[in-house]
Amino acid sequence: MIIPDGSGHADSPPLKTPNCIGTHQGIAVATLPRMVRAIKKGVSEQPTNSLERAARIRLLLMDCDGVLTDGTVFFLPSPDGAIAETKGFDCHDGIALRWARQADIETGIITGRGGLAVQQRAKSSDMRYLVEGRTDKLASFEEILTDSGLCSEQVAYVGDDITDLPLLKRVGLAVGPANSRPEVREVAHWITPSSGGRGAIRDVIELLLKAQGRWEEITARYDI
Amino acid sequence: MIIPDGSGHADSPPLKTPNCIGTHQGIAVATLPRMVRAIKKGVSEQPTNSLERAARIRLLLMDCDGVLTDGTVFFLPSPDGAIAETKGFDCHDGIALRWARQADIETGIITGRGGLAVQQRAKSSDMRYLVEGRTDKLASFEEILTDSGLCSEQVAYVGDDITDLPLLKRVGLAVGPANSRPEVREVAHWITPSSGGRGAIRDVIELLLKAQGRWEEITARYDI
Amino acid sequence: MIIPDGSGHADSPPLKTPNCIGTHQGIAVATLPRMVRAIKKGVSEQPTNSLERAARIRLLLMDCDGVLTDGTVFFLPSPDGAIAETKGFDCHDGIALRWARQADIETGIITGRGGLAVQQRAKSSDMRYLVEGRTDKLASFEEILTDSGLCSEQVAYVGDDITDLPLLKRVGLAVGPANSRPEVREVAHWITPSSGGRGAIRDVIELLLKAQGRWEEITARYDI
Amino acid sequence: MIIPDGSGHADSPPLKTPNCIGTHQGIAVATLPRMVRAIKKGVSEQPTNSLERAARIRLLLMDCDGVLTDGTVFFLPSPDGAIAETKGFDCHDGIALRWARQADIETGIITGRGGLAVQQRAKSSDMRYLVEGRTDKLASFEEILTDSGLCSEQVAYVGDDITDLPLLKRVGLAVGPANSRPEVREVAHWITPSSGGRGAIRDVIELLLKAQGRWEEITARYDI
Repeated sequence: MIIPDGSGHADSPPLKTPNCIGTHQGIAVATLPRMVRAIKKGVSEQPTNSLERAARIRLLLMDCDGVLTDGTVFFLPSPDGAIAETKGFDCHDGIALRWARQADIETGIITGRGGLAVQQRAKSSDMRYLVEGRTDKLASFEEILTDSGLCSEQVAYVGDDITDLPLLKRVGLAVGPANSRPEVREVAHWITPSSGGRGAIRDVIELLLKAQGRWEEITARYDI
Repeated sequence: MIIPDGSGHADSPPLKTPNCIGTHQGIAVATLPRMVRAIKKGVSEQPTNSLERAARIRLLLMDCDGVLTDGTVFFLPSPDGAIAETKGFDCHDGIALRWARQADIETGIITGRGGLAVQQRAKSSDMRYLVEGRTDKLASFEEILTDSGLCSEQVAYVGDDITDLPLLKRVGLAVGPANSRPEVREVAHWITPSSGGRGAIRDVIELLLKAQGRWEEITARYDI
Repeated sequence: MIIPDGSGHADSPPLKTPNCIGTHQGIAVATLPRMVRAIKKGVSEQPTNSLERAARIRLLLMDCDGVLTDGTVFFLPSPDGAIAETKGFDCHDGIALRWARQADIETGIITGRGGLAVQQRAKSSDMRYLVEGRTDKLASFEEILTDSGLCSEQVAYVGDDITDLPLLKRVGLAVGPANSRPEVREVAHWITPSSGGRGAIRDVIELLLKAQGRWEEITARYDI
Repeated sequence: MIIPDGSGHADSPPLKTPNCIGTHQGIAVATLPRMVRAIKKGVSEQPTNSLERAARIRLLLMDCDGVLTDGTVFFLPSPDGAIAETKGFDCHDGIALRWARQADIETGIITGRGGLAVQQRAKSSDMRYLVEGRTDKLASFEEILTDSGLCSEQVAYVGDDITDLPLLKRVGLAVGPANSRPEVREVAHWITPSSGGRGAIRDVIELLLKAQGRWEEITARYDI
């Protein structure tokens, strides 16, 4: 696990809080009742259950490609003679990631790919976790639970592909962007109206902030 | 505040003109009546009120990401070892920014991000103002009012996100691109038919030139 | 005027042919009857008149931004310390530009912008003409007529913006991509079904080859 | 023919298997009955015949531009003074290409263009074949048949343009992405729901894995 440079809070204490039910060791999430969902393609309501789940979230984890980006990857010649990988991030996501931090919601990326662009996104968004180039997302997730002292009900995860299913099935709030594969749509608690790389993370963070009564505080800054 | 290199008119005199009502100190705009708007998603009419407002504009300010671009940001390795940030600008916006200058409408960018790409856009468009990497947009706006000698009724601002609300609420003509967040749609005088990075600024500049009786002069050059 | 390196036919003889009516000096095109067009937004038929006009074309000229590209421009740090400008070209256009050459239709770009990317497109497509960074498109056009020995009825031009109007009004076949500004739609003989950077030039070249009875010859190569 | 570096299986034995009918010398495919297809624009069913054809595939070949990408090509200054060509690849395709390899389906690219980006895609996807910068796709295809010891019924090919027709007419399973030219739609056994560069190859690989009873094995890894 890599903790992004410059995060400024890498040695923060664990985030464990009293509203953690049970331990993440057991990961009892599979037995949690799944809410009834009626998701229309590309558009969806924010069901009451998602708001309840969102109210408990202390850590927002996410996949990178297809979630923070539209899934497109560009290979470029790097000045050092190697090949750099770049991809497009969304400015609405960027500002929301800073709001999350200001409202004491930590963030992180778990991705099977990696490289300069995702490192820069993690760093500039002051994220707490960045796991890159590792295909076993579940092991990474469990390390993060241990490190943070959080239980899975306090963690949200956003993923768009079947490689994200193990995490989506375990977290307190499982979210897919509008472009999610069908298998993700089946297990997600919420499908965002926006696609990956076009504001999906902004949608999630607005949901978290509203559920936690912190949204007014953000908008009040601009209601001047 | 940074004045773009090569603007060629950085030491121009203030732009103050007789049709300035009151002073920008008081910023009485909040008490101006809001016009009735019927905006359909993605398409909108140019209401009479917008034309009246547009007729007074001497300075067009704008956000960068999501306005001059579609909001996507790419991180690239730079030859100097740092990481460069690039984004896509629209050629229809580019030519319109030159027309604005030729019709004595000054332009400028106020953005929370920054970097080589936006500097290049400001420079190649012969803009008067570029404020980058500063999140307090209101302070930047007030500095620009002082520097230009204009009152807020003479300034238009184009922004797509809630961070743009303080400026949108103060200027004489508040515009959102088609991709604006809902909070922007509520306060904007006009939503452009085009999205950010796909001609939104071209739409605004055509409105200004038409409202000021300068559009024929532009098209006459090509009616040959 | 710059003739792209490696074109391999830069010192070809003039292209003047017997079916040239009158001289380009007089440019009598403004008096040519305009055909009746019924163009639906984004989709259009290939009217008979366009086919007749296309049958006479020996040279296909085009704007770059918004025609060979979708109009988006990216600024990047260049290894030499300067700023490079890049943009996206379409592979379907690329192959069609080679087919045009093989069927003895010359091609060229007239653009107000310029740079490495458009030079590379002109070179790799074996174009005869490249005029970049010059806003007076009409002067460039007349120089090309003189150089080629063609009359305006033998030239097609593809443009999307009002800066292209002087050329669109003079050529034998005036084409706009699907994303053309309204002023272009008014004067174009044909609006392509595809947008700029998404196959608009491919559409035009297929029209030319079909009108000139050369399309079967192209497809026969692949009917094996 | 270039075999990508680092493929780790470049000296594998030929892939010939008992279910090869006839020899590829005769390429009897042209006489195979074409199934009845009802393809709606942009969306299509997976007809039974495609599943039968997919069950026999041991090698998946594909064009690059318009198939692994959306057809857009960017030219960039390279640190070595040359011009690099880049294009956008899809992350859903990327993971599926790895799954194909794990299920003993080899992959390869045959493209008339070339360059760093496609080489990187071939290498990172552990492909067996990469033919770049060669316009005679049929000769490349026949070399690959010889090298692999496969017959054409065991090969699938994905292409979007008329230059792909010779291969599409010969292979056991001919696929076009949603953005295919009309001529491709006429001969393809299947048109994928996704466009090139937006998951078309992922669609094809899911079809192959399902037809070969290997899909459950992939998803089982994530059903934990």
